Amino acid sequence: MKRTLEMTRVNANWGEFYKKDISEKLPFFTKEGRLYDCLFAQQFNRRLLTHLFKTADALRDITQNKEGMDYAGGLLSHIRAMLYFVQPSTRTFLSFLNACHILGIRTSEIRDTSTSSEVKGESPEDTVRTFSSYVDMIIMRHPTPGFVEKTAWLMNRTDRPVPIINGGSGKDQHPTQALLDTYTLYRSFNGDMDNKKIVMVGDLKRGRTVRSLTYLMRNFKNISLVFVSPEQFRMEPDILEFLKRHNMPFMETADFMSVMGEADAIYMTRIQDEHDNAGESKKVDYSPFHFKAEHLKLIKKTCVIMHPLPRRHEIEVTVDEDPRAVFWRQERNGMWARAALMAYIFDVDKKIKY
Amino acid sequence: MKRTLEMTRVNANWGEFYKKDISEKLPFFTKEGRLYDCLFAQQFNRRLLTHLFKTADALRDITQNKEGMDYAGGLLSHIRAMLYFVQPSTRTFLSFLNACHILGIRTSEIRDTSTSSEVKGESPEDTVRTFSSYVDMIIMRHPTPGFVEKTAWLMNRTDRPVPIINGGSGKDQHPTQALLDTYTLYRSFNGDMDNKKIVMVGDLKRGRTVRSLTYLMRNFKNISLVFVSPEQFRMEPDILEFLKRHNMPFMETADFMSVMGEADAIYMTRIQDEHDNAGESKKVDYSPFHFKAEHLKLIKKTCVIMHPLPRRHEIEVTVDEDPRAVFWRQERNGMWARAALMAYIFDVDKKIKY
Amino acid sequence: MKRTLEMTRVNANWGEFYKKDISEKLPFFTKEGRLYDCLFAQQFNRRLLTHLFKTADALRDITQNKEGMDYAGGLLSHIRAMLYFVQPSTRTFLSFLNACHILGIRTSEIRDTSTSSEVKGESPEDTVRTFSSYVDMIIMRHPTPGFVEKTAWLMNRTDRPVPIINGGSGKDQHPTQALLDTYTLYRSFNGDMDNKKIVMVGDLKRGRTVRSLTYLMRNFKNISLVFVSPEQFRMEPDILEFLKRHNMPFMETADFMSVMGEADAIYMTRIQDEHDNAGESKKVDYSPFHFKAEHLKLIKKTCVIMHPLPRRHEIEVTVDEDPRAVFWRQERNGMWARAALMAYIFDVDKKIKY
Repeated sequence: MKRTLEMTRVNANWGEFYKKDISEKLPFFTKEGRLYDCLFAQQFNRRLLTHLFKTADALRDITQNKEGMDYAGGLLSHIRAMLYFVQPSTRTFLSFLNACHILGIRTSEIRDTSTSSEVKGESPEDTVRTFSSYVDMIIMRHPTPGFVEKTAWLMNRTDRPVPIINGGSGKDQHPTQALLDTYTLYRSFNGDMDNKKIVMVGDLKRGRTVRSLTYLMRNFKNISLVFVSPEQFRMEPDILEFLKRHNMPFMETADFMSVMGEADAIYMTRIQDEHDNAGESKKVDYSPFHFKAEHLKLIKKTCVIMHPLPRRHEIEVTVDEDPRAVFWRQERNGMWARAALMAYIFDVDKKIKY
Repeated sequence: MKRTLEMTRVNANWGEFYKKDISEKLPFFTKEGRLYDCLFAQQFNRRLLTHLFKTADALRDITQNKEGMDYAGGLLSHIRAMLYFVQPSTRTFLSFLNACHILGIRTSEIRDTSTSSEVKGESPEDTVRTFSSYVDMIIMRHPTPGFVEKTAWLMNRTDRPVPIINGGSGKDQHPTQALLDTYTLYRSFNGDMDNKKIVMVGDLKRGRTVRSLTYLMRNFKNISLVFVSPEQFRMEPDILEFLKRHNMPFMETADFMSVMGEADAIYMTRIQDEHDNAGESKKVDYSPFHFKAEHLKLIKKTCVIMHPLPRRHEIEVTVDEDPRAVFWRQERNGMWARAALMAYIFDVDKKIKY
Repeated sequence: MKRTLEMTRVNANWGEFYKKDISEKLPFFTKEGRLYDCLFAQQFNRRLLTHLFKTADALRDITQNKEGMDYAGGLLSHIRAMLYFVQPSTRTFLSFLNACHILGIRTSEIRDTSTSSEVKGESPEDTVRTFSSYVDMIIMRHPTPGFVEKTAWLMNRTDRPVPIINGGSGKDQHPTQALLDTYTLYRSFNGDMDNKKIVMVGDLKRGRTVRSLTYLMRNFKNISLVFVSPEQFRMEPDILEFLKRHNMPFMETADFMSVMGEADAIYMTRIQDEHDNAGESKKVDYSPFHFKAEHLKLIKKTCVIMHPLPRRHEIEVTVDEDPRAVFWRQERNGMWARAALMAYIFDVDKKIKY
């Protein structure tokens, strides 16, 4: 389980470690060539993604009946997990919890830090180490960027590390959301991921999901991205730089209707007004970035409409009944993709044959 | 799983559907001749009640030892349930949760809406649909009358419905409370439900349990009801109308002592002062509607004393030791009756032979 | 399950019962010669302690692999437990919860009394009796001294008692903490518990763990105790009396460094400022009661450093990496010791052979 002593020594200072490029950090979160801590969307390459998606598909097949469900429920019945959700997120929480249930993992929940020993003056590092004492894995959501990563870093330096899965770390990373989004594309495109045009719509500046999804798109061939947003909420320059560096074509526009007809997938997002500093959101007319029932006739027959949910008014409710609206399925895909990921981390994916 | 397209189309408007008579709605909540969503006390007829009670009895018998408990724990080990309790209710919650545990159902809990995505501006309908994504059944308690029913109605119109069980919907309905009350009568009367006199005592105007229980009593022969209450809290006219319509004899009185001697069961209730508009409760002398130790010698040897609990002072604590005080057993009956109900809904009742 | 009628009658008055000496009370919490309710550290004698420690060790051995873990998970799969934690304590809660998971016990949690029916005016006794209705055991933490004991007393007088385990009752008792502390000594000393010098450091006046641990030390031979504390927070006279009565040598000092070299175990504690009446803690210089990295070279090679956690600054973080720092293992020992205790109470300890 332990990293080499060498590696531990080199990475002994958190401040220095944190500043490194992700590619340099990855070995520290890997074990015997297998992802150990799941922290960054960048940890998923095409081969791993495909394997996880096929595993998720196979798991769904197997569990169509009681016998198969009981088989799945025995795969990780020896594992105990902690869901440590400092930041509220019912959706991600339930998705992970039920993924655990599918695999038979026994779960403990911390959802309210006021019940925690933190009130007694304990350091966050001690608190997390305490939690890890009782379990074999921590699924963690935390508002502070870097905190989940630091937890994994700390754990890997103890004599009893446990895998850490990032369930969302501030504006930072939410790798399993990117995983489920890509899995939804994979299922919608029948596994044919190359040569697609993905249109992302809304508050791209402050949305974490569109950032992570963009990173993952690099794993596929000839993907072109269209960013549709109000002027104030355009995609951040670092992402555009990333695309240029990898020769991935993209365009930016504020005119949703002009591009929706070409899309293979439309990824809608809500306005992230919880990140407002001075009421920016209210100054924006967001309605041009809504998907309305009348748009259904303008998009391809094969185009899928996605949304990370929760939604407000970005997608009209009557759209839900169109078969191209896949956002409800997208939610369920999250549960299955997460189950596949955990099966992989604990090396029982081989018991889910595809 | 799906209702016929025809049925769905006819019932496409919630506002119109909601106003219909319960008897007209029932088919929409039924599947292959079997209750699918459990929403109203009126869904239980004598035949179903008897079947559920015998199933509950058999389940208790089977689970007397570890082998039988493990057998029961395998019956629904492939099912995941969501306990969505927006309104606090420890008792009903624990009863359902442990009923799930008995059958091996894996559970997720939402007990505090502040952790929910509702804070992000999601509609309640979207929230519920999200919850349903991860599970096979929702057990729901909600303060708004009609909301649980609407959830079931919505779910049945999607391509992935799950059964909804009403764990209490405002002043509206609490069908499994009525189920457990009737089950308690069934056990107390050794299965002989006909020709009984039931005395209901207390705040009958605002008590949900006495209303539901009255509805269920129609399923049995020659039941006479006595309503004992302060003038201000008499049973509501709609219930009295219901009794007249079905030729069920009843009387109303404020004189508890004059009627207790004839009772086969006395159903005590507490004053529902949480529903006060202007301190009505404080203006009433509730003590004549208490059951005191000195009353034990006035009631029949076979009369049982029930209470939906929690109690305040309606029943003196020393009464608890009398074998006719069955309210603690009544609580436990709830767990078993709910387990029987869930076994029935998921069609494994046939594996619990009686 | 029931106590003899005789015993129940004699102990019919709680107020009188509570005042009795613990030795007189023990039979009431014992069943067929076996501890039934776990309420006081004084319930553990050397023979039982040794049995529980060997059982805990064996359970750890067995569960090294999936097959063994699944075996353990079947031992109490027929048991349902309630974790009733009115007082927040993440650590103790998680430790018990995961101990339950190891044995397959299905759990219900009450961690927030605001969701409880207490709001409806129910008595605490009724609330607890309700909880007991649905489960086979209650693990209880409560801020009021005596409340956990009273619950056990009440339950034992009903026709359906369930074992009560004390997870901490105010300043009163925390028997499983004493159990895990002693288990940690047992493991650190390779089972050789006699002839040891134990140094306890810090706020001994208000620390519950040092009191309970002292009680348990009486079970071993030739133990000498050293109490290191600020003048204001010296160990209470009743404990010193207890030691004199049992001819156990002890000394008191404020000079930590002068005694650390002789210690076989150093038990560090934090200042209990939550019990301050008028800011007493701030008037004390606590730094002489800290264990610093520089002290490592002053203590025996075999000396272990313990702490009940959470810590503040009593132990410098760099000390954690020294193999003599066993406090993180101490936490994990708690989970296993509690699992052994529950296995014993439910009479499946014989299935965990050592």
